[in-house]
Amino acid sequence: MGKKLTKRGEDYSKWYNELVIKADLAENSGVRGMMVIKPYGYAIWEKMQAELDRMFKETGHENAYFPLLIPKSYFNKEASHVDGFAKECAVVTHYRLKNSDDGKGIVVDESAKLEEELIIRPTSETIIWDSFKKWIQSYRDLPLLINQWSNVVRWEMRTRLFLRTAEFLWQEGHTAHETKQEAIDETRKMQGVYAEFAENYMAMPVIKGTKTESERFAGALDTYTIEALMQDGKALQAGTSHFLGQNFAKAFDVKYTTKEGKQDYVWATSWGVSTRLMGALVMTHSDDFGLVLPPKLAPIQLVIVPIYRNDEQLEEINTKVETLVSKMKAQGVSVKYDNRTTQKPGWKFAEYELKGVPLRIAIGPRDIENNTVELARRDTLSKEIVSQENLVKTVVSLLDEIQENLFKKALNFRNELINEVNDFDEFKDVLENKGGFISAHWDGTSETEDKIKNMTKATIRCIPLNAADEEGLCVLTGAKSSRRVLFAKAY
Amino acid sequence: MGKKLTKRGEDYSKWYNELVIKADLAENSGVRGMMVIKPYGYAIWEKMQAELDRMFKETGHENAYFPLLIPKSYFNKEASHVDGFAKECAVVTHYRLKNSDDGKGIVVDESAKLEEELIIRPTSETIIWDSFKKWIQSYRDLPLLINQWSNVVRWEMRTRLFLRTAEFLWQEGHTAHETKQEAIDETRKMQGVYAEFAENYMAMPVIKGTKTESERFAGALDTYTIEALMQDGKALQAGTSHFLGQNFAKAFDVKYTTKEGKQDYVWATSWGVSTRLMGALVMTHSDDFGLVLPPKLAPIQLVIVPIYRNDEQLEEINTKVETLVSKMKAQGVSVKYDNRTTQKPGWKFAEYELKGVPLRIAIGPRDIENNTVELARRDTLSKEIVSQENLVKTVVSLLDEIQENLFKKALNFRNELINEVNDFDEFKDVLENKGGFISAHWDGTSETEDKIKNMTKATIRCIPLNAADEEGLCVLTGAKSSRRVLFAKAY
Repeated sequence: MGKKLTKRGEDYSKWYNELVIKADLAENSGVRGMMVIKPYGYAIWEKMQAELDRMFKETGHENAYFPLLIPKSYFNKEASHVDGFAKECAVVTHYRLKNSDDGKGIVVDESAKLEEELIIRPTSETIIWDSFKKWIQSYRDLPLLINQWSNVVRWEMRTRLFLRTAEFLWQEGHTAHETKQEAIDETRKMQGVYAEFAENYMAMPVIKGTKTESERFAGALDTYTIEALMQDGKALQAGTSHFLGQNFAKAFDVKYTTKEGKQDYVWATSWGVSTRLMGALVMTHSDDFGLVLPPKLAPIQLVIVPIYRNDEQLEEINTKVETLVSKMKAQGVSVKYDNRTTQKPGWKFAEYELKGVPLRIAIGPRDIENNTVELARRDTLSKEIVSQENLVKTVVSLLDEIQENLFKKALNFRNELINEVNDFDEFKDVLENKGGFISAHWDGTSETEDKIKNMTKATIRCIPLNAADEEGLCVLTGAKSSRRVLFAKAY
Repeated sequence: MGKKLTKRGEDYSKWYNELVIKADLAENSGVRGMMVIKPYGYAIWEKMQAELDRMFKETGHENAYFPLLIPKSYFNKEASHVDGFAKECAVVTHYRLKNSDDGKGIVVDESAKLEEELIIRPTSETIIWDSFKKWIQSYRDLPLLINQWSNVVRWEMRTRLFLRTAEFLWQEGHTAHETKQEAIDETRKMQGVYAEFAENYMAMPVIKGTKTESERFAGALDTYTIEALMQDGKALQAGTSHFLGQNFAKAFDVKYTTKEGKQDYVWATSWGVSTRLMGALVMTHSDDFGLVLPPKLAPIQLVIVPIYRNDEQLEEINTKVETLVSKMKAQGVSVKYDNRTTQKPGWKFAEYELKGVPLRIAIGPRDIENNTVELARRDTLSKEIVSQENLVKTVVSLLDEIQENLFKKALNFRNELINEVNDFDEFKDVLENKGGFISAHWDGTSETEDKIKNMTKATIRCIPLNAADEEGLCVLTGAKSSRRVLFAKAY
């Protein structure tokens, strides 16, 4: 079938790229760095969106939509933000094309030059705070809890499907609050929502922490992050939540009347996750045979394949399966019956294995006779003959088991790769030969952080929220440190 | 409360703009022609999306996502398409900004000029057919039924919130088929889906028809449309479905191997509806007091307002309402209990009237005593005292009744304004003094169509699908005609 995958052990990066393409998740487009998300990949993203959207609404947020294009001058209003974002942007300079003089094509109409260039949003703080100024007058308007689902463009030089693309889909939450503490609480709450989503739906364990100053979002006072570990021992930042202080409120002059009748600037947060999560999902669970999807995000949770030698047998199986499918659907199982006659069972088995469908049922004439089916698990690649009695119950409980198993497996893998390290030679050795997170003391300076990054390519992924107080010496400089941080090479 | 609306009779256009802003549906942004969709407006759009998405999936379509930016050269591949679209587009010419020499701002980095300009999609046929070429090899890959939810940009000169904006949100379906007939069937099927959505969810009657050649989508062989009538007697094109023939297949060289082993070009359709529907919804039902929303699309279907003189009374009402709210939610009623102490009942009544909430319950101490509530309908502005017994049932059945009533009212209004006209003086008189659709004979030429448009501003909205064969003479030229078409001034 021409779909043989490179093995992870041979070339992890190649395995990833091939898998994303062969499993029909996404492909490159004719536009540099921009991907096409194919129906199967988009169906997974839709499931992610649905769960996240529900969680945002349950925590009191409302969706809205702001313009794609942002006037250049807006970026100038927040000084550190412009440094972080305005540089790698797609710039709209004209609003019309015309026929070329030779009549053979179309060219930019120079007479349709914009007075002020417009930037395709790389993130929407500036245009949103321009609106918030109109929406916020009094404490009665607070907290303002807004989320936007949208596309953004960042002109990345090196791109990889889902992990780093010039255009990506995401959600960006933007909130305004009366007090500093309320804004910090919101920032942490949304980090919590992201962690819950990652662990309970993606079955991907994450470490909650804060970023060091140099890794913070441009314009934030503090960035909270969830960090995951991929199977090649590299870390992946899966979601961030930023405490923005009063920076944007001051930049866009957003004041409110307090209960006491005074004027004060509001306090802000922003937070986002993107289609990058698709890459994280692939790299957390999949194997040399293809995707492995957690049941809660699998577009197809169960596929049923008929095994038959003639039309009569197929018809008998069709009748049996029809009832089974309705029962499964009634219990909320997303099921597909693939009785195409154009493909053989073996081809179908390989195809659904590649696409990570959690459970597969094969049913043939002997199964009809014995009132059984063959049930195969994608996560363990195990098969067993089970009774058709209570099959729906069996399937529902197996889906739960697979979800749990995937999380535990990933958690064990991740925990094995949190390496406590106490000197720099060990640091380099573990980083090169074992990989994973390195838990080490750090003197707290950006200078040391930079040096380590330059020497090893490892960055501080986060200062874990649950890090215990522990006196120690910086792994590079030997200066005093009061707790360990997590280093890793990262995506 | 500073929210008094201009009346429709005074200035319909002003009424519309004020209403959209005061009801918190949308507002203008700092970017010319681009709007901000506010949470209340976006919540209605989300309800529209959810229903449409369900209907698309039930008819076998899958969602996918294609790049925002399209290389200029792609537009050149389909000749009529480039004429229709490439002209009024936002053009990305650079991919970086830099600090200005005076250090005071940021400017376009001239060294980061793109080799080929990129166009922000005004519609995605070209970039999607570039992918379809890779996705389609054999009849087994057909039909290919794809939909995309996205934002598009068209550089409109005169913009109005929702009705015509430089950026808008929409869905665009793109399909490929083995045969011409299959593609035509798909085009008509999706027109049917749109009509069903408009009538059953928006409670907005529509006329199904086809467009004349000059009103067709650029690149289509036939455009099917649904046309609605607004309260000012102007028509609004609410959704279109295009039969594209083999134009895009040929432009992008998309061939497939037939069952007989031959090579042939595929047949195509595309179809879309947009946030323009929000404008149509507002203009179909709303009145001088504000929005009137059909229950099926109302973010809040029922609001409950407590009437009290002291805390004790409020607490008693709170307890009562708590139970009521759970019961309503259990029956799928979207209910809001507004017991804010910062606003008075009168203010709340006006607010929810303005926002078009279909049902309002007021409950005070006397109601508690008598086991009653006051129930008010937004559509008829009527009020009655009803028993708390079976209140959920009363509400559920009233919501259905309101949905139906809104449709009937709009249908009667529309039907009253389909004017059969047989000479051109009458045509002009009816158009100016009565408005609505003018059902008249037309000689079938673009020339006549243009003349009528130039003289009256009326265009042919559609050739209705259900138009009876009827011999007649063209209302302008007196040439022979075999059936009537519908003219109107339009949004």
